[in-house]
Amino acid sequence: MLNLTIDRTSPVPLYRQIMERLRELIEAGTLPAGFQLPPERKLAEELGINRSTVLAAYRGLKEQGLLDAHVGRGTVVTATVGRPPADGPVPWAHLFAEASLSAHDPVLRDLLELTERHDVISLAAGVPAPELLPVETLRRLFDEVVEEVGPAVLQYCPTEGHSPLRESLSRWLASRGIQCSAEQVLVLSGSQQGLDLAARTFVDPGDVVVVEEPSYVAALQVFRTARARLIGVPVDEDGLRVDLLASVLKRHRPKLIYTLPTFQNPSGAVMPLERRKALLELAGRHGVPVLEDDPYSELRYDGEPVPSLRALDREGIVLYLSTASKVLFPGMRLGFLVAPEPVVRRFALLKQGMDLHSNSVGQFVLDRFIRAGLYDPYLAGLRKAYGRRRDLMDAALGECAVPGLQWRRPLGGFYVWCRLPRTVERGRLLTAAADAGVAYLPGRTCFVEEPEGVYARLSFSYPPEETLREGVLRFARSVIEAGGRGTTVNRTAVGTRPIV
Amino acid sequence: MLNLTIDRTSPVPLYRQIMERLRELIEAGTLPAGFQLPPERKLAEELGINRSTVLAAYRGLKEQGLLDAHVGRGTVVTATVGRPPADGPVPWAHLFAEASLSAHDPVLRDLLELTERHDVISLAAGVPAPELLPVETLRRLFDEVVEEVGPAVLQYCPTEGHSPLRESLSRWLASRGIQCSAEQVLVLSGSQQGLDLAARTFVDPGDVVVVEEPSYVAALQVFRTARARLIGVPVDEDGLRVDLLASVLKRHRPKLIYTLPTFQNPSGAVMPLERRKALLELAGRHGVPVLEDDPYSELRYDGEPVPSLRALDREGIVLYLSTASKVLFPGMRLGFLVAPEPVVRRFALLKQGMDLHSNSVGQFVLDRFIRAGLYDPYLAGLRKAYGRRRDLMDAALGECAVPGLQWRRPLGGFYVWCRLPRTVERGRLLTAAADAGVAYLPGRTCFVEEPEGVYARLSFSYPPEETLREGVLRFARSVIEAGGRGTTVNRTAVGTRPIV
Repeated sequence: MLNLTIDRTSPVPLYRQIMERLRELIEAGTLPAGFQLPPERKLAEELGINRSTVLAAYRGLKEQGLLDAHVGRGTVVTATVGRPPADGPVPWAHLFAEASLSAHDPVLRDLLELTERHDVISLAAGVPAPELLPVETLRRLFDEVVEEVGPAVLQYCPTEGHSPLRESLSRWLASRGIQCSAEQVLVLSGSQQGLDLAARTFVDPGDVVVVEEPSYVAALQVFRTARARLIGVPVDEDGLRVDLLASVLKRHRPKLIYTLPTFQNPSGAVMPLERRKALLELAGRHGVPVLEDDPYSELRYDGEPVPSLRALDREGIVLYLSTASKVLFPGMRLGFLVAPEPVVRRFALLKQGMDLHSNSVGQFVLDRFIRAGLYDPYLAGLRKAYGRRRDLMDAALGECAVPGLQWRRPLGGFYVWCRLPRTVERGRLLTAAADAGVAYLPGRTCFVEEPEGVYARLSFSYPPEETLREGVLRFARSVIEAGGRGTTVNRTAVGTRPIV
Repeated sequence: MLNLTIDRTSPVPLYRQIMERLRELIEAGTLPAGFQLPPERKLAEELGINRSTVLAAYRGLKEQGLLDAHVGRGTVVTATVGRPPADGPVPWAHLFAEASLSAHDPVLRDLLELTERHDVISLAAGVPAPELLPVETLRRLFDEVVEEVGPAVLQYCPTEGHSPLRESLSRWLASRGIQCSAEQVLVLSGSQQGLDLAARTFVDPGDVVVVEEPSYVAALQVFRTARARLIGVPVDEDGLRVDLLASVLKRHRPKLIYTLPTFQNPSGAVMPLERRKALLELAGRHGVPVLEDDPYSELRYDGEPVPSLRALDREGIVLYLSTASKVLFPGMRLGFLVAPEPVVRRFALLKQGMDLHSNSVGQFVLDRFIRAGLYDPYLAGLRKAYGRRRDLMDAALGECAVPGLQWRRPLGGFYVWCRLPRTVERGRLLTAAADAGVAYLPGRTCFVEEPEGVYARLSFSYPPEETLREGVLRFARSVIEAGGRGTTVNRTAVGTRPIV
């Protein structure tokens, strides 16, 4: 028991109060270096407050270098400190704005860093296979652009994007059933920037955003940074449970509905046509914009395409977001938004202050790639290669036959979403996987509220085929070490049950 | 007289109230299409409120398409509208967040667009001369990178930046007297992103930021978007008036001091060593971080370099921002920050949500450019070329001999800052310059408060030498047309008087 006292009537936020109390105890030496703090959940119960408040306080103190988290040891005091001297190093943590403290966990940054380590097989991040990227073609196109355009290719370009690219994107989108003018296309520095722009444009602190549960982790983080109140609506094998949406819209009057209707990240679900129509009808009736995130729809390995929400939209209520990162060149950071012109104008105003414009070299090259008609044949090749990897991961999971491990074979995208046996302990799985040399995305990061089960997202896109199988085997071993039981079971019985 | 009633006790912000009242009058037909609204200043006086409040209301109604601004005609009603139908097009302007409404004017975006027009000589934007950009060298380096690294050059990279680039930047910075580790370097998507990150990290709405007056227009916009309260401290021929700073720091307790100490944008001033030391001493004493923006220091055409604030900083209080955009490849959008590690970590957390990372292709190429030792010889060539343009603009301004037009020949950077004759009318100058086919940056955009005089920033970096002279002549003619008098005067008398 820490016996912290908090004052609910104070204007100082509760998490700040907790930070201050703990800091005092650490500075006084009452909590020495190495002292293990109570788990967040426990302290929250003790104080009768929300777990996320304790989480924020712990996070703040980690930022200040007073606490650290260790797998298996929980949160511990790292140092006995004095107050920063008046003329000494700057106490940065005290200078950071309230707003910036809602910034997210470094999960995604850490995942990107993991892919740089050579002893780890990464099934964690949704990173395309480097050997499939058309680097020689792109180099040739760059040469052509330099030849024709000269140094202007290195020059500033308009905030909304290189005009020829906006035109070629609008024409290419028409082949996907999306009718839009070049003026309705905004070039982005990756679709991540589109999420950030949406949050900055629509969300004042406390505003409600509806998200799928589970959802794309970095989107959740962006909305949290904007201090949105996130309301999760569950996903089933047909995507967002639109039947549960009506009451949410009525009760919470959200500013935005965020959805990935095709090859949902992380669940892999595809929303059927009828449900898409129902979603649009509902959103239109309540006047709530729908942010459709569609990075994966071109990567379909089986079955027929379903039209995007934007293609079905008759009310102009859909903001459509996609990217060149999953298929062409992630490192170039190019994505795009299709939206009504007032939204494009508003986003462009904000984007101007954020990075002036997205890099023009990549825009010239992408424009040329589309105009040369290279996109569709290239995609056909990608689909074959990633389809094989999807099959390989599915087969390897079946082979391992970990009892109680459930997953579905996705029709497209990059991910297999696994529900782990109930007996698996999260902390132990993290440690076991790190020891085994495999990385996965812990499922809890994809949820707004603590999920009931234990989940993991495995990506089959990045490792070469020979490594991919080994990665799955390592993961399966880690599951068993972390509490899953290691007997053999009938493969099909495990492999076909729906996971959400 | 519009006879608007506002309620100061209402929780609805005043600008929103004004928007609503005006909207009602437009909808009722009381204010028909074409109706000319009173100037912002006049309405502000009438209502006894701040001019910026009226400005925000007008801006909001422009966003909604109800008002428009025309040079020479002021703000007029564009349409008589009904309420948007319940099932009709989405009333986007009503959905935008309060926070996003503080987004800035489209000045800078418009400037970038102007540079795409062929009938206009642009002296407006700080855009490097395309013919000076080393596109062939960069293409060769890209080829080498592709050869060595293969498709990984197209891959995601860590949020903080490509590690080899952070190392080569830290070594290169040491040659400029800036001692820092690779971990203290954060790669940015242009230094514009650094400004945005600083605003998001340090500024809660209402927090004070000290800026120079005049200052870099896009920085002012970013801080305004973050709803900072801007306190301007004047600039003289030695840069920021540090002697006026002490009382400002005491009275306003700012979160940040934003300064461009070398070849200040727009004034061109260079802060002498002693004033730099005084600034650091003062900032250290008050514990206020100094954001040093340094895009131009390598472009010195006369005299000896002065150490950057960061090079002089003994307290770790300076955040140093620079960019490859003014010298190497603006379109690649690469800049960097040097800061204490807690700040780098915090910025990286936020940046992750903004664009994951800056484009990796550019980072590979920039790293190689530095490592190959190409930077310094290249800069030597640039200095000669831009020095000639600076002389040319200075000479052309002297030739025109517009009475009352004052400027200083800058020692470096891209800009000549002009104080225009008192008789010049701003609106008429805008029209005259557009008619004459020349673009300049209106000086008032660089100020927090309405300046007393009329100013213009002329950039000599972009137009080829033959065009540059013609651009200056067009500008001088426009000044005369806009109210300046057209007699001849002694050149030196005009050319050597300090302008601020």
